[in-house]
Amino acid sequence: MTLGGPAGGRGLIGRSLERQDARDKVTGRARYTVDLRMPGMVEGKVLRSPYPHARILGIDTKEAAQLPGVLGVITGADLGDIDPYFGQAVKDQPLLAIDRVRFAGEPVAAVAAVDALTAEEAARRIVVDYEPLPVVRDVAEALAPGAPQLHVDRPRSTLFPDVQDIKPDVTRNICHHFVYRRGDPDAAFRQADVVFDDTFTLPSVHHFPLEPLGAIAHYRGRELTVWTGTQYPFAMRQSLAEMFGLPQSRVRIVVPYVGGAFGSRELIPAAPIAAALSRRAGAPVRVLFSSEDTARTVVRNGGRVRIQSAVRKDGTIIGRRAEIHLDTGAYTDQGSRVSKKAGYRIIGPYRIPHVEVNSYAVFTNTVSAGSYRGFGTPEVCWAYESQLDIIAAKLGLDPFALRMKNLLKRDEEYAPGDRPLDSDMDQALDILAKEVGWREARASGEGVGLACAIKDGGGTRTSSTAIVRLHQDGSATVLASSAEIGQGVQSVLGQIAAAELGIDPSRVTVTAPDTGVTPFDQRTNASRATSLLGHAVQEAAQRVADQVRAIAAEALEASPDECRLEGGGVSAGGRRLGFGEVIQRFFRDAGGELIGYGYQRPAIGLTALGATASFWEIGLGAAVVSVDRETGAISVHRYVSLSDPGRAINPAGVEGQDLGGAMQGLGPALFEGMVYDEGQLVNGSMIDYRLPLFSDLPESFDAVIVEGGGGPGPHGAKGVAEGSIIPVAPAIANALFAATGARVKDLPLTPERVWRALRSGAGRDA
Amino acid sequence: MTLGGPAGGRGLIGRSLERQDARDKVTGRARYTVDLRMPGMVEGKVLRSPYPHARILGIDTKEAAQLPGVLGVITGADLGDIDPYFGQAVKDQPLLAIDRVRFAGEPVAAVAAVDALTAEEAARRIVVDYEPLPVVRDVAEALAPGAPQLHVDRPRSTLFPDVQDIKPDVTRNICHHFVYRRGDPDAAFRQADVVFDDTFTLPSVHHFPLEPLGAIAHYRGRELTVWTGTQYPFAMRQSLAEMFGLPQSRVRIVVPYVGGAFGSRELIPAAPIAAALSRRAGAPVRVLFSSEDTARTVVRNGGRVRIQSAVRKDGTIIGRRAEIHLDTGAYTDQGSRVSKKAGYRIIGPYRIPHVEVNSYAVFTNTVSAGSYRGFGTPEVCWAYESQLDIIAAKLGLDPFALRMKNLLKRDEEYAPGDRPLDSDMDQALDILAKEVGWREARASGEGVGLACAIKDGGGTRTSSTAIVRLHQDGSATVLASSAEIGQGVQSVLGQIAAAELGIDPSRVTVTAPDTGVTPFDQRTNASRATSLLGHAVQEAAQRVADQVRAIAAEALEASPDECRLEGGGVSAGGRRLGFGEVIQRFFRDAGGELIGYGYQRPAIGLTALGATASFWEIGLGAAVVSVDRETGAISVHRYVSLSDPGRAINPAGVEGQDLGGAMQGLGPALFEGMVYDEGQLVNGSMIDYRLPLFSDLPESFDAVIVEGGGGPGPHGAKGVAEGSIIPVAPAIANALFAATGARVKDLPLTPERVWRALRSGAGRDA
Repeated sequence: MTLGGPAGGRGLIGRSLERQDARDKVTGRARYTVDLRMPGMVEGKVLRSPYPHARILGIDTKEAAQLPGVLGVITGADLGDIDPYFGQAVKDQPLLAIDRVRFAGEPVAAVAAVDALTAEEAARRIVVDYEPLPVVRDVAEALAPGAPQLHVDRPRSTLFPDVQDIKPDVTRNICHHFVYRRGDPDAAFRQADVVFDDTFTLPSVHHFPLEPLGAIAHYRGRELTVWTGTQYPFAMRQSLAEMFGLPQSRVRIVVPYVGGAFGSRELIPAAPIAAALSRRAGAPVRVLFSSEDTARTVVRNGGRVRIQSAVRKDGTIIGRRAEIHLDTGAYTDQGSRVSKKAGYRIIGPYRIPHVEVNSYAVFTNTVSAGSYRGFGTPEVCWAYESQLDIIAAKLGLDPFALRMKNLLKRDEEYAPGDRPLDSDMDQALDILAKEVGWREARASGEGVGLACAIKDGGGTRTSSTAIVRLHQDGSATVLASSAEIGQGVQSVLGQIAAAELGIDPSRVTVTAPDTGVTPFDQRTNASRATSLLGHAVQEAAQRVADQVRAIAAEALEASPDECRLEGGGVSAGGRRLGFGEVIQRFFRDAGGELIGYGYQRPAIGLTALGATASFWEIGLGAAVVSVDRETGAISVHRYVSLSDPGRAINPAGVEGQDLGGAMQGLGPALFEGMVYDEGQLVNGSMIDYRLPLFSDLPESFDAVIVEGGGGPGPHGAKGVAEGSIIPVAPAIANALFAATGARVKDLPLTPERVWRALRSGAGRDA
Repeated sequence: MTLGGPAGGRGLIGRSLERQDARDKVTGRARYTVDLRMPGMVEGKVLRSPYPHARILGIDTKEAAQLPGVLGVITGADLGDIDPYFGQAVKDQPLLAIDRVRFAGEPVAAVAAVDALTAEEAARRIVVDYEPLPVVRDVAEALAPGAPQLHVDRPRSTLFPDVQDIKPDVTRNICHHFVYRRGDPDAAFRQADVVFDDTFTLPSVHHFPLEPLGAIAHYRGRELTVWTGTQYPFAMRQSLAEMFGLPQSRVRIVVPYVGGAFGSRELIPAAPIAAALSRRAGAPVRVLFSSEDTARTVVRNGGRVRIQSAVRKDGTIIGRRAEIHLDTGAYTDQGSRVSKKAGYRIIGPYRIPHVEVNSYAVFTNTVSAGSYRGFGTPEVCWAYESQLDIIAAKLGLDPFALRMKNLLKRDEEYAPGDRPLDSDMDQALDILAKEVGWREARASGEGVGLACAIKDGGGTRTSSTAIVRLHQDGSATVLASSAEIGQGVQSVLGQIAAAELGIDPSRVTVTAPDTGVTPFDQRTNASRATSLLGHAVQEAAQRVADQVRAIAAEALEASPDECRLEGGGVSAGGRRLGFGEVIQRFFRDAGGELIGYGYQRPAIGLTALGATASFWEIGLGAAVVSVDRETGAISVHRYVSLSDPGRAINPAGVEGQDLGGAMQGLGPALFEGMVYDEGQLVNGSMIDYRLPLFSDLPESFDAVIVEGGGGPGPHGAKGVAEGSIIPVAPAIANALFAATGARVKDLPLTPERVWRALRSGAGRDA
């Protein structure tokens, strides 16, 4: 790590600078939502449904409302002119249940009171009359004929819907059905030498951010301000503006420090509850979910993936069919989008001409599924990379060689019309194999496994804006709205601006999102901030630099083009002006600042997904494991992750993100999974739920960064930080197979499962 | 008043819209600095000097520091690498006294502790060893040979000094000496038919804002955030950045609601104390001054004005000499600038070819003098408008006619090189005289008096910047940094932007200043915000409108020039797009916003003051009084104020400001004045100090708004809100003279003074 460093310029790019948030976080100075106090703030508490599925016959709030200290009680039936529904792709989730609850833990009523104990006591005094309904426990039950129908209405779309092809069939509990077809899959499967047909499963998992969800809302006059650690401040602004009938200019979402996100912090359901309570109570209201509540708010879907591959004897894959069922829980949330992405991405980074995919998101009476690092790709990569090793074993091919044969080359099309591949995956796999010692490990019969993943990164149809302000002392401020969720985005954006302006990055401050002042950024997701928001920041800084050149040119007796920004000033032909002098010259001693704005607009092309990828994010992983044959416990001894950031603006940040993703991937691979009993989540706490600890890390754990260029971001940057989580599970499963011959198709790879597989001899002929 | 109103357009200009801050303030929802709570915030208290002048021999903080709950004690000798000096024009004031105290109430030490009582107790335990020094009580004592010398060093200038001609002579206690000379005054006085030589005085007064001064500061890592109700957030940013050695991008000044300013809220000395305490204590520290402390922090200077006029028998004024001494107290603050402005403005709105002015700011051991509504003009207008009626009486002329004869015409020069007059003052005086019934009142011997004032408005060398953001639902945000100090600036800026964008002003939000995000604005002073910052806002909105036209043109099959923005959308040739559609088209469904920036740069010309006026602010007043001859009490029965806003963007706001200024002017005219006894302020509290109450208002109290056009702001707007305070005292004094023949030359016009004047027959031959 390099601290601060000398004055800027392009040489800044590729330097590992300290993160802007680092010292606050390690010294405990960082303030999260829970740390904030608003004048006159009161506490809100939520009453949740004990039933996974029930009709609400009535709610009696009288006793609660009469408790001294209670400032307001609200129910779904009692929200006045608030539009109670919110949602990401479609608005089907009420802020408090209306008529019906669809999962155990669903918010049913809420109370604002002078303190938390009073609010809790009041919530206890609310009497809800439920009529329990049959519970849809999983996808199979949801799709079974005669299953209870969870939703009645077609969901309503949002102001800027980005899912064009939504095809819900609520009568069959189908939230979304994505179909993708190309070539002639029937012919391919007829012509194949061998057809492989495997089904893989994985349970739902929870992100378990260290900071649970929460929000403070202040509804004041015709203005709403919300403080909450969200990744999606502008989507929240839109959502709350629509719910409360306010102009977006009067809804302000302020994002304090965020204690972990990973996709769990999008619309933050605590916020509309807090806002509705604030409107009722006439005071700022804080609603903090516990960690257990948070686990009952958003999960990554569980899934079942049936994958069929048509393969020639030499290992060439000529066709693929897939049927994907993802359990999206009680409400749509991101389920429709995830199932679509999963369907598109099950092709993997391989040249497969004939494809037919049906991907479904299915409603059940469980917690709704939202985004999770990888967004649908870990689910399908688990299937296609496991199956690739099954194919290799069956055909007697080396798994490395089989991948090399089928991998897309740089500039090849992933799908017609989509962005051509912008990484050298074959070279990357070669580097990875050398790094992990593939050849030697295979030769010695060691448990080594590989997996390759690709995802269209940055989100499709995605936009960002930014503002750069150059101050009269030559320091600068970047106004940008990407949430600092631990990825170091603020430092990277500062580095990008500093490089354009030729100033020391320690003199650049990057704001936290506050929709009242910082400009639009669509979302902090999809590994998009560095490259896409970064592009907007770069353009904004360039607009400032252009103004500097225009002002300085006369004094420097040069053309604007000859003026170079470096070292905190502008120079040409041996003459030089500091930025302070430039601003003084322009504003004639009165002080001032120069302002530039930048826009990142979506790519134009259209594909099966509606828009081309912004870039391709790749993630490759290699694992070396051994297995305790008595217990079935897997020990991961070595793990190597490889990513391609295009150009690493801050290499230490890239490495940190890559290793962080790989570490997080160990959880769903080895032990994570949410366990339900008749619709009741039984391990939804940090005590009961098994997360990866530092003691779970392999003895050897490395990230390899290959800078392949070609990204759409500043200096060729692309996104990273999701790629590394994706291949972890199949790499370990493939290593397990190499070590033992046992093929496990269900995650997580618990000792029990492995032990049973070893006993049954599963895998040799899988 | 009109609420909200229909969608925008130029028709919006001139409509009286509700102020953005109105409901918050009248319902008590508005949050001021005192209402804020920062996580972990502790309290700071200040120990002040009991002596008006003393040497500090030593400070013992040991006992204070050891008190349980104390987190830090600081003194001027113990500030580490903080540069302790601050100041507006020059930096001569330490945040805590160093070696010496110069007024009673000067901060000497400060304590941060877990609560206010502990901090107060600790402050009491600080032992300061003073050696009292002789006290300089007033200007006469300060200038007397052998007077104690208050300052030793030449003060240091600031980064962007705007006083070029500062000529302090600290050996004679002269803070500043401004000389202005034109024509041949000696000859004029030789050629005069009559020479008038009068001396007028007025005491120092305090602004007494309802909210006392205070600040919360959080020094965290290498960043400083300050919450404080200041009119000068960017000057504070610069000052604190220099004191703490931080880049301006890392100093954030956030301005909550402000409870009255009137010039008293500039650098807010509570802020550097809070910041230094925060750095010491490692926590956010709040320092709240009491109302009594605030009265010991900033005042309007007292003054003595000797004015000589060379006049022809027909009333033509051909020459003026003036010697002005303003008591600027212990430190420079705004004293140098005020004395300069007073010197320049003593010419008044009259055609006087030969002028010689010497204007001095003088140091004394009293509270430092800063800005006050009118900024040096009430002091000199008191003199020149009183003297004009003395001249009229002496020459047997009608005071109205005498003024009409000498008033500058529109487009005449006030001084060579300065902006020509941009109001029709003669027409304005005629309107005023008709409105108050001048002719009839004079004929009936009623106590009627007139006064005319002019000030170069907007400040010289002054700049503003602004950003306008158009959101995807067609609402908009204006980022601008003018503090809402009760003048309604946020509403007016919103109205200006709404008119350019063609949207309903209720859909525009104007931010409060926060230097971390909102762009540079030099100051909220000098009646400048509507016209000068307004210009930047208008330009920013026009940049957005240009982008809208460019995007829409294709869809509307028109040229950008043909596209008109109105009613929340853009139309041409019968076709129309809403702004949401425009943004959707540009950002291709991804959402986004359009951003524009605007700059207001200073006028180019140079005059005796360094730069030309931005505009001329005029203020005319007419009073009708009667006098209780037994007590000397003046009753003001009718007062008419006249102002020229160029173009009234929000007429109700103009009227409110005009009446507010006139009402505030009643205080210094009739009863206000700070009383010192041996350097000790004896009436520095709201109990002891007599402010105008609503019961002091004349039965008839009116504002006449004349829209003369010709301002530099949007739609021809100029500033108002200071002009009306200036003529109040001389108008009443002239009315008193008309009613009684008594001429009082010392303010305030207390019953005792009037009674004594009536008894002595003063005035008849003054």
